[in-house]
Amino acid sequence: MIAFIGGTGPEGLGLAFRLAVAGEDVVIGSRKLERAEAAAAWVRERWPSARVRGALNREAVADAAVVFVTVPYDGQRSVLSELADALEGKVVVDTVVPVTFEKGLARALPVEDGSAAQEAQRLLPRSRLAAAFHTLSAHKLQQGDTIIEGDVLVCSDDPEVKAAAMALAEKIPGLRAVDGGGLANARYVELITVLLLNLNRIHKAETGVRIVGLKAGGPLGDPLDP
Amino acid sequence: MIAFIGGTGPEGLGLAFRLAVAGEDVVIGSRKLERAEAAAAWVRERWPSARVRGALNREAVADAAVVFVTVPYDGQRSVLSELADALEGKVVVDTVVPVTFEKGLARALPVEDGSAAQEAQRLLPRSRLAAAFHTLSAHKLQQGDTIIEGDVLVCSDDPEVKAAAMALAEKIPGLRAVDGGGLANARYVELITVLLLNLNRIHKAETGVRIVGLKAGGPLGDPLDP
Repeated sequence: MIAFIGGTGPEGLGLAFRLAVAGEDVVIGSRKLERAEAAAAWVRERWPSARVRGALNREAVADAAVVFVTVPYDGQRSVLSELADALEGKVVVDTVVPVTFEKGLARALPVEDGSAAQEAQRLLPRSRLAAAFHTLSAHKLQQGDTIIEGDVLVCSDDPEVKAAAMALAEKIPGLRAVDGGGLANARYVELITVLLLNLNRIHKAETGVRIVGLKAGGPLGDPLDP
Repeated sequence: MIAFIGGTGPEGLGLAFRLAVAGEDVVIGSRKLERAEAAAAWVRERWPSARVRGALNREAVADAAVVFVTVPYDGQRSVLSELADALEGKVVVDTVVPVTFEKGLARALPVEDGSAAQEAQRLLPRSRLAAAFHTLSAHKLQQGDTIIEGDVLVCSDDPEVKAAAMALAEKIPGLRAVDGGGLANARYVELITVLLLNLNRIHKAETGVRIVGLKAGGPLGDPLDP
């Protein structure tokens, strides 16, 4: 079972939807039960066979093996501090981007730990962290009828957790998981997202990113560069 | 004529070579004349019809309309401070990435101005800055027999300068220029390069980046997403 902390936001809802469509059992967590249940109903409406329910964040994570953190950066600290005990031993996939908007421009927020993911690891010292799924357009994720193209860069210091997060990414058609190295690299992946948000505005588009030049062969080969 | 400050380094040499092959008149600048001339000879050896010569940095930029800055970050401040007068009014394309290596890992250096490009603009208040060409593999640029795939993200606050840098990028076969917005976005593009350097090590590859999801049509359309 996969839980989403803050799963009613655009990125969390989009990822929950795509993973439910891929056959995963999903719990959408929120601070408000009604909002969580409305989000679950939204998913079921679009994909009637989805196994999805809504729950308060703490209840959502209780039975989950994998927990996605999909809150805005300014909410991460309080929600993770509250749930640290409930998240002990669990795989936590942090998707958070430390970004703010000023006059329509996205700008990275400074993070003392280096990245939102490293901050999450500090707040959750007994959880197993990966950083991933930052660069996917929330709006495209929510559209059921589109293949979402792009790479998911996955950073973790724990090889098992990295492999689990990469396998989840590849369950979503069109996406390729790319080993992004250790959690220290999460900073750069988070910041790519800030650039993409600005590119979206300039180009009136919903952009993503693809790494070119990776060796072909195997599931991680580059389909564009055989 | 296009000049390269620090054109004997791997990125400068690679770009000078590719632009010379594309028919541009190129001057490779260095602090040492012998090194500049050796680099020019290297280009001519691989492309006998290349219009290329070597010169001391100051002499190299004298007749150039466009000047590439291709020095390591730790050399940028001193070389640009020295050449500020010679670069007045010129189009300056900054390719510099503020990066250091520790135990084989690339790590971004903090830059007070936000990015190497914004630092260059501060040092060259009367020059017209663009930031571009960061994410191209220096080694691939130097290989004459390969198409180098990827996007060149171009950031500038000056539309004419941005257009000029984008046009140069598209002279190199395989590359697509992407409007990266204002110079404030250079930070994110510079940091993508730090990630790519780490990906190169993890994947034993020479990676680049492509933005997906841009609208099709026109020279800036996405060839992968028609």
